[in-house]
Amino acid sequence: MNYISIQDSSSLSKWVRSALKIKKSPLKNQSLGKNKTLGMLFFNPSLRTRLSTQKAALNLGMNVMVMNFTNEGWTLEFEDGAVMNSGASEHIKEAAEVVSQYCDIIAIRAFAGLESKEKDYSETVISGFIKHATVPIVNMESAVRHPLQSLADAITMEEYKTEHKPKVVLSWAPHPKALPQAVANSFVEMMQLQKEMDFVITHPEGYELSPEITKDCKIEYDQNKAFENADFVYVKNWSNFNDYGKVTNIDPSWTVTTEKMALTNNGKFMHCLPVRRNVIVSDEVIDSENSIVIQQANNRTYAAQLVLQKILKKL
Amino acid sequence: MNYISIQDSSSLSKWVRSALKIKKSPLKNQSLGKNKTLGMLFFNPSLRTRLSTQKAALNLGMNVMVMNFTNEGWTLEFEDGAVMNSGASEHIKEAAEVVSQYCDIIAIRAFAGLESKEKDYSETVISGFIKHATVPIVNMESAVRHPLQSLADAITMEEYKTEHKPKVVLSWAPHPKALPQAVANSFVEMMQLQKEMDFVITHPEGYELSPEITKDCKIEYDQNKAFENADFVYVKNWSNFNDYGKVTNIDPSWTVTTEKMALTNNGKFMHCLPVRRNVIVSDEVIDSENSIVIQQANNRTYAAQLVLQKILKKL
Amino acid sequence: MNYISIQDSSSLSKWVRSALKIKKSPLKNQSLGKNKTLGMLFFNPSLRTRLSTQKAALNLGMNVMVMNFTNEGWTLEFEDGAVMNSGASEHIKEAAEVVSQYCDIIAIRAFAGLESKEKDYSETVISGFIKHATVPIVNMESAVRHPLQSLADAITMEEYKTEHKPKVVLSWAPHPKALPQAVANSFVEMMQLQKEMDFVITHPEGYELSPEITKDCKIEYDQNKAFENADFVYVKNWSNFNDYGKVTNIDPSWTVTTEKMALTNNGKFMHCLPVRRNVIVSDEVIDSENSIVIQQANNRTYAAQLVLQKILKKL
Repeated sequence: MNYISIQDSSSLSKWVRSALKIKKSPLKNQSLGKNKTLGMLFFNPSLRTRLSTQKAALNLGMNVMVMNFTNEGWTLEFEDGAVMNSGASEHIKEAAEVVSQYCDIIAIRAFAGLESKEKDYSETVISGFIKHATVPIVNMESAVRHPLQSLADAITMEEYKTEHKPKVVLSWAPHPKALPQAVANSFVEMMQLQKEMDFVITHPEGYELSPEITKDCKIEYDQNKAFENADFVYVKNWSNFNDYGKVTNIDPSWTVTTEKMALTNNGKFMHCLPVRRNVIVSDEVIDSENSIVIQQANNRTYAAQLVLQKILKKL
Repeated sequence: MNYISIQDSSSLSKWVRSALKIKKSPLKNQSLGKNKTLGMLFFNPSLRTRLSTQKAALNLGMNVMVMNFTNEGWTLEFEDGAVMNSGASEHIKEAAEVVSQYCDIIAIRAFAGLESKEKDYSETVISGFIKHATVPIVNMESAVRHPLQSLADAITMEEYKTEHKPKVVLSWAPHPKALPQAVANSFVEMMQLQKEMDFVITHPEGYELSPEITKDCKIEYDQNKAFENADFVYVKNWSNFNDYGKVTNIDPSWTVTTEKMALTNNGKFMHCLPVRRNVIVSDEVIDSENSIVIQQANNRTYAAQLVLQKILKKL
Repeated sequence: MNYISIQDSSSLSKWVRSALKIKKSPLKNQSLGKNKTLGMLFFNPSLRTRLSTQKAALNLGMNVMVMNFTNEGWTLEFEDGAVMNSGASEHIKEAAEVVSQYCDIIAIRAFAGLESKEKDYSETVISGFIKHATVPIVNMESAVRHPLQSLADAITMEEYKTEHKPKVVLSWAPHPKALPQAVANSFVEMMQLQKEMDFVITHPEGYELSPEITKDCKIEYDQNKAFENADFVYVKNWSNFNDYGKVTNIDPSWTVTTEKMALTNNGKFMHCLPVRRNVIVSDEVIDSENSIVIQQANNRTYAAQLVLQKILKKL
C-alpha cells in the first residue's frame, strides 16, 4: 500500500476517527514498528513534515533514516533510456530499488519545479519511486499533492466543526514567490471526500487550479462573497496553473484580514504553514483565538502516524 | 525550566558534583528519557556540541531529531509585526510553537551575526524560541552565551584543581576571523559563580568584553603578568565588542607559548575547541601534558546530560 | 581493530561465510550493539554507504550519530605543525580525539581529491583519524580504498558463482567526470585474496591502476579478449592514475553492451553504483537477468554488519 494521494484513504471519515484515537494514546502501538525502518528522502527543505513524520515513526517504535539529496546525495535521472553523460549520477531505477532494500517504508519530499507543467503534473519523482521501489511509498509533498497535510486538515476540521453542516472556503492569498499548487490540490481532493460540508474555492480570475483536480467544485471570484458565513477559511497561496508557475498577481486586497473574517460565521482560520505574516494573513487574524494553524500542525503527527500504522499492518 | 545561561544552574558547585556522578555511571538514568524527544535545531555548524548533546540524550534513553536550518529548512523572521514579503518564509512564533508540539525539549544553536551588537546582545533567536516555545529550551550556543561549554569547563576545573585556591586566567589570543564573544562571556559568568577561585581576564586594550558581563572582574592588559602563578589558563579569541564584530588586532605576541606557560604555576591549558594551532596556541603547549582540552570536550557530554536530566525530571 | 582495507579481513572466505549467516538472520545480534554508538562522518556525499551502514548498525542495536562535514561542520587541517591562519578551523588531532570520546566506533567517508596523487595515496584523512582516534575506525570509502564495497562484492560473487573456478574481469568503462580509483583498487585487493578465481583487469592503455595495488595481476588491454568466457564482469570507471585524476579517455567503445556480454560465459554484470546508464553500461545489460547490481547493493548491509559485529565483539 502506498500513500500518494488523500484518495488512498479507503474511507476518509474512518481514517479521521482512527487518527483521533491515535492522538489520545500515541504510544499504544510502539511494538508495531519494532525493527522496521522508515527512510525519509528529502529533495527539498522541510520543517513540519520532517519532524512530525519522524515523530510519528518514533511513536510507532520505528527506526528512522533521514537523507537529504540536496547536500548529502546527488542528482537523479528520471528519464527512461537517458544517456547519462551530463548532470545526473544515478537513475531512479537503481536508487529506488536499492533504498527499498534498506527500508521498510520510503517517504519522499519532492516539490514541483514550476518550470514545466507537464513534468510536474506527471509526478516524475514520486512516480519514479512508485514504479521502481519494492516497498510502500509515502508522499511527504510531491509536485502535485501533499496528502499528509490534507489528512491533518481533515482531522483538524473534525475537531473544530460544530453541529451544523459547515461551510469551508479555500482562499488564495498573495505571496511574493512562486509556490506549488500541491497543498491546495490536496485540500480540494480531501474536500471532495467530505460528505457533510459545503465547499467553495475563491481566487482571482486566472488563478484556477487544474480542472482535473477541481472538477465540479464551486468557484467564487469574489473573496468577500466566498467568506460569507464560512465556518472554516483555509488560506493558501499558489502560483498560476495556467500561466504555469508564474506569479501573475500579488494583489494585497486578497490578504486575509479581520474585516474579511468578520464576514464569516465565527470562522476558523487555517493554513498549512509556513505562512508569511501580513502578506497572506494579518497578525490580528493569525494571532486570534479563531486561528487553528498550530493545532493543524500538531495533527500532522497523527496523520503521519495513521498512515505509517496502516502500512505497517499490511507489511 | 530553560537552560540559557550558566546562571540557570541553581548551584554551580552542586551541579558540578552531580555531573561528576553522571560521568561515573552515564547509563544509570536510561529510563528517564524513554519516549521523550530532544529536538536539536542548528542555525550554524557544530561538531562537539552536536555529538555530545546527542550522546547525552541517548545516554538518557531519549529520541533525538536533528534539524539543520541552513540547508534543510528556511529563513525565519524574528521581528514582531513584520510584513514578510522578502527573505523569511516563517515567523519564529509559528516555528517555535509548532516544533514544541513534536519535541519535549528543544536545543538551539544560533551564533552571533557580528553585524549588529544590539541585535546579537538582545539574543534575537534564542529569545524568540523562549518566548514562543511551549517546552524547555536548551542553549547550544546563542549570540551571547555558551553555557553548556562553561558548565563543562567548571566540571573540568573541579577534576584538575589541587588543594589550594586556584588562580584562573581567561586570555584572549589572536585569530584571523571574527568570532563571537559567547564562550568568553559564559566562562566569565561561570567564574563569577565560583567561590574559591581567583579570576583575571587578560586581553589587548580595546578588546574589553561587555561590561554588563564582566562587571567587576579584574582585567590585566599585560598577558605575562596575568599568567604569573596561574593554575588554569583558559584561552579564547573573540572579536572586538566595542568596535563590534571587527578583528582589530591579530598580534601574534598574544599566542600562548611554552614561554608563557612557564610563568604559570604548572598551569593547565584549556580551550573550548575548535582551536587554530600555532595561531591561538603553539603545538608544544596544546600537545603538552598540561593541556586538558580533550578532557574538557569529554565533559561536554556530562554537562549536557546533567541539564537534560534536570529538565526531564521537571517535565 | 580498524577496518581500512579488505586486507583487514583475517580470512576473506570465513568473513564471506559469516556475512551470509548474518544475512539469514540479521537481527540475531541485536544486543551486541546496545548502548554502543556509531559515529558516521561524511566528507562527501553518500547514498548506499550511508543507509546500508546505518541499517547494519541498527540491526545490531547500536545508536547512530551522523555528521556531514561539508555543511554541518568545518574544514579540518591534516598537516602536523601547520600554522592554522587560513581555511581550516580545527586540526584532525583534536577532532579525532574528541569524537572518539562520544563514539565507540567511527566510520568515515573521505574521497580522493584527485589533485595530488601523493596526498591522496598517503590517505591523509583516514590516516589522520587512525593516528589520532582512540576508537576503531571503519573506512566508508577513503581516497584509495572502499573495502565495505569489495567485501559486499565478495559476498555477492559467493552467492552467484557456479561450481567451476570462475573467471572474473574488472573492466574500466568511460565516464564524463573524474572519479577516484578507490572501488577498483579495493576490488583488485579483494580478488588477490580469492584463491579459486581467475582474475583479469582490462582498461585502455595508459589507464593502469597503481602498480603497488595491482602487483602481478593480469592486465589485458583488449576488452573483448578479457570478456571471453568471463563469469563475472565487474565494471567501473576510474580517472587516470598516471596522469593523475585526469579524464584522458572517454572512448564509448568501452561501454559494456549486450554484444560484449555475449562473449562471456553467461557472465554476471556487476557495478558498485551509482552508475551512469548508456555511458558505463547499456540499459539492456543492466536491466538483464544477468545484472546483479541490486543484489550487490543489498549485501552492503551485511558487509557493514559483519565488520561492525567483529569490532563490537573486540571492544
